[in-house]
Amino acid sequence: MNNSLLAALRNIVGAAHVLNEGDLSAFERDWRGRVNGKALAVVRPKSTLEVSQVMKLCHAEGIPIVAQGGNTGLVGGSIPDSTGRQVVLQLGRMSAIRSLDKHNLTVTVEAGCVLQLLQQKMQQEDLLFPLSLAAEGSCMIGGNLATNAGGTQVLRYGNARDLCLGLEVVTADGSVMNTLGGLRKDNTGYDLRDLFIGSEGTLGIITAATLKLYPMPKAVVSAWACASSIDQVVNLLGLAQQKMGAALTGFELMGRHGLELVAKHHPQFRVPFLDEAAEFGVLIECSDNESDSHAHAVLEGLLESAMESDLINNAVVAESLEQSQRLWDVREHLPMAQAKEGPNIKHDISLSVSRIPAFLAEAEQQLDALVPGIRPINFGHLGDGNLHYNVAGPLGSDPEEFVGQYEKAVEDCICRLVAAHGGSFSAEHGIGAFKVDKLEQYKDATALRLMKSIKQALDPMNLLNPGRVLHGSEVARLETKS
Amino acid sequence: MNNSLLAALRNIVGAAHVLNEGDLSAFERDWRGRVNGKALAVVRPKSTLEVSQVMKLCHAEGIPIVAQGGNTGLVGGSIPDSTGRQVVLQLGRMSAIRSLDKHNLTVTVEAGCVLQLLQQKMQQEDLLFPLSLAAEGSCMIGGNLATNAGGTQVLRYGNARDLCLGLEVVTADGSVMNTLGGLRKDNTGYDLRDLFIGSEGTLGIITAATLKLYPMPKAVVSAWACASSIDQVVNLLGLAQQKMGAALTGFELMGRHGLELVAKHHPQFRVPFLDEAAEFGVLIECSDNESDSHAHAVLEGLLESAMESDLINNAVVAESLEQSQRLWDVREHLPMAQAKEGPNIKHDISLSVSRIPAFLAEAEQQLDALVPGIRPINFGHLGDGNLHYNVAGPLGSDPEEFVGQYEKAVEDCICRLVAAHGGSFSAEHGIGAFKVDKLEQYKDATALRLMKSIKQALDPMNLLNPGRVLHGSEVARLETKS
Repeated sequence: MNNSLLAALRNIVGAAHVLNEGDLSAFERDWRGRVNGKALAVVRPKSTLEVSQVMKLCHAEGIPIVAQGGNTGLVGGSIPDSTGRQVVLQLGRMSAIRSLDKHNLTVTVEAGCVLQLLQQKMQQEDLLFPLSLAAEGSCMIGGNLATNAGGTQVLRYGNARDLCLGLEVVTADGSVMNTLGGLRKDNTGYDLRDLFIGSEGTLGIITAATLKLYPMPKAVVSAWACASSIDQVVNLLGLAQQKMGAALTGFELMGRHGLELVAKHHPQFRVPFLDEAAEFGVLIECSDNESDSHAHAVLEGLLESAMESDLINNAVVAESLEQSQRLWDVREHLPMAQAKEGPNIKHDISLSVSRIPAFLAEAEQQLDALVPGIRPINFGHLGDGNLHYNVAGPLGSDPEEFVGQYEKAVEDCICRLVAAHGGSFSAEHGIGAFKVDKLEQYKDATALRLMKSIKQALDPMNLLNPGRVLHGSEVARLETKS
Repeated sequence: MNNSLLAALRNIVGAAHVLNEGDLSAFERDWRGRVNGKALAVVRPKSTLEVSQVMKLCHAEGIPIVAQGGNTGLVGGSIPDSTGRQVVLQLGRMSAIRSLDKHNLTVTVEAGCVLQLLQQKMQQEDLLFPLSLAAEGSCMIGGNLATNAGGTQVLRYGNARDLCLGLEVVTADGSVMNTLGGLRKDNTGYDLRDLFIGSEGTLGIITAATLKLYPMPKAVVSAWACASSIDQVVNLLGLAQQKMGAALTGFELMGRHGLELVAKHHPQFRVPFLDEAAEFGVLIECSDNESDSHAHAVLEGLLESAMESDLINNAVVAESLEQSQRLWDVREHLPMAQAKEGPNIKHDISLSVSRIPAFLAEAEQQLDALVPGIRPINFGHLGDGNLHYNVAGPLGSDPEEFVGQYEKAVEDCICRLVAAHGGSFSAEHGIGAFKVDKLEQYKDATALRLMKSIKQALDPMNLLNPGRVLHGSEVARLETKS
């Protein structure tokens, strides 16, 4: 059967775009290199019609399809399993910007467009597409939407979901749905757009989207503040929201442990106020529609007010774009600095902002009871209640050994605590293959049941990314590299 | 059966809260008084547990349920049909504000809370819940969410959907889903929240919601401008978005015909620049986090720039809150002024902003070909591409006769034209009972099929508001008065 299937696939997309030999690891291995799958073939369509034809073929033959963009996901959701039975549908050739509508502030773009490319093209038009995340140089719009990507600008502009007005989607039977009208209000029936967004390729294949744009702000200025306690930082966030409104486009929290690692492994970036023994650094970004000087005045006003209210110990406003960039360099090198220190146990959690101080105190206490001297390395998008709460072993311990021995216990501790505070164990990264069991364990039981009903209704043959998000009728287990 | 059912319902919510005698027209007649239904009973639960128990009972007995809030919908979606077999579940007794979280800028509120009451309570805390619409004095949060209400602040704050972080929902079998965590990021599975929002009570019953709040702006200042052409107004919108960013919280368009009716029927409100023979009035609102004087400076800067670019003929900035209110009075009395002139043919459409000039020109031409001298009365939320495009007969014609004779032809003309421009025939008001046929006719065929699959999956017995949004297996037709 495989040979006739391959011939039929070649017939649809062209022989050059059906890959089934040689090194396919770029399509089969996950971004962090933790897992290798094996594809029946990697198919690279050029048009929505081709995606529809491929889907119809696979639907008729009962062949599962894994949609893939830049393959930068962190939960194993965009690679095939190890059975060699799944077709990877890689959308990189569908990268066109179909149309730009300046009056409507929208752009219609295909799934395979790389995020950074879209940002740059829009910038040339003096327009802002605000989605911004670490993988932007290679992740693609289709994947951003399929995973409802977050990033650093969510505080002001929302998640990928909030930036999308309409979709073109190929369904499990190869039909095409088109809601690319660019409408900001449309109450004609159920919100299918948001159902597909964040469904990680398990309900349909996003082939194009109409996205919101914003006029480019006149000035973007950053500041760095340091504070002694998380309560101060939470109050600083409230003050910034009150004084800056929508001009507050970034509010990033970094714990002392992590900043020390940046200073150690990336000494070229000066970490502000590291010698002041403050527990937290905060990076605040102001986007202004008036002028650079107005942005400075707004930030300075905030920081003065925060000093007076004893919410911060010290602060500095960047004097230039370059200085702003250097502050962001510190923030962006935090994950890398951690990686250089060795493996650690990663979490991507969210909580109500008001619950964060209690959560942090309890987590630290419980983890320390588990392994005395354990080092939580805490950073994230505080304005969204989203923390990347990564846990390293005690100073001097062997990182690999620590992770091997304590990964499950630490994860259980954090997930239980997050659940107790009404939070989410996966704020940005999704479920993919790696967190399906956690979803079963922690998701509201009614919600989980509804999800399964919807999956059954929209993909009754379980052909779309089976075993991801939800256990399928036949769960193909990913084989972990040992 | 009815007697034992009524007894069981009384047992759940208390005898005083099961109404099946006397004048129930407040629950059975639609807001505009166009349609009367007949309920088996009106049931008024006090808690989520009671809603769940009522739903379980009706599920076991096969009794359809129509959820109802303030019953202010415009499409007949919240009243029972004429069979006398449907239970109206009126949620007005579930009106508690369950919790306010100032650090997280969220409030958790029950479905029966009246919108204006929530706005006022939050204002007392110096917080803004920005949803604002004509019916706010009686509409309820549950209905706002079930219909994804829009209003005048969508440009900045989005529709009801965009203001909701989580829901409590009772499903068709009486289960309870709870996602009230107040999380701004949560990628644990499918977006059920947005599926229930806007589903008009056909997929589940919203009993509570966690909503976003904003710090109250320091100043809100309005201005009025007049322009000769719609192209000018579209360009003015672009300029305002560029110069004001998120400070632009309102941009309302009003055509000359409508403004003349306000001047005629509500002479106490002075319509600015009516003697200048401009075709359009525009109401622009600026919300500012700094100060009243800064808001004035921003608006004046915009209007000067717009005058220089020849986008407006004249403009005035309100000097006080009271003057701002008088400008809004004109806008808000436009529908009433029209009503005083007699019945007209109403549309609630949306388009890409860029398509609006072409649409308006074509619509005027085609309508005038249909009935020479016909008067389109055009106003709406231009910033959202949302027009309330209402059509009155020629001067001197009998309004009732005109509507009776031309309603279908005019609606068909407008809906066809909207579809040709990629727009929506129902931007804010939803589908309800009145627009089910239009949905069948104009909705993307794949989307419509997916909607039916989802309805079947979540409400297989078709008990939740049957016949609304989608034709049910047994479509109970509403009986039109007269």
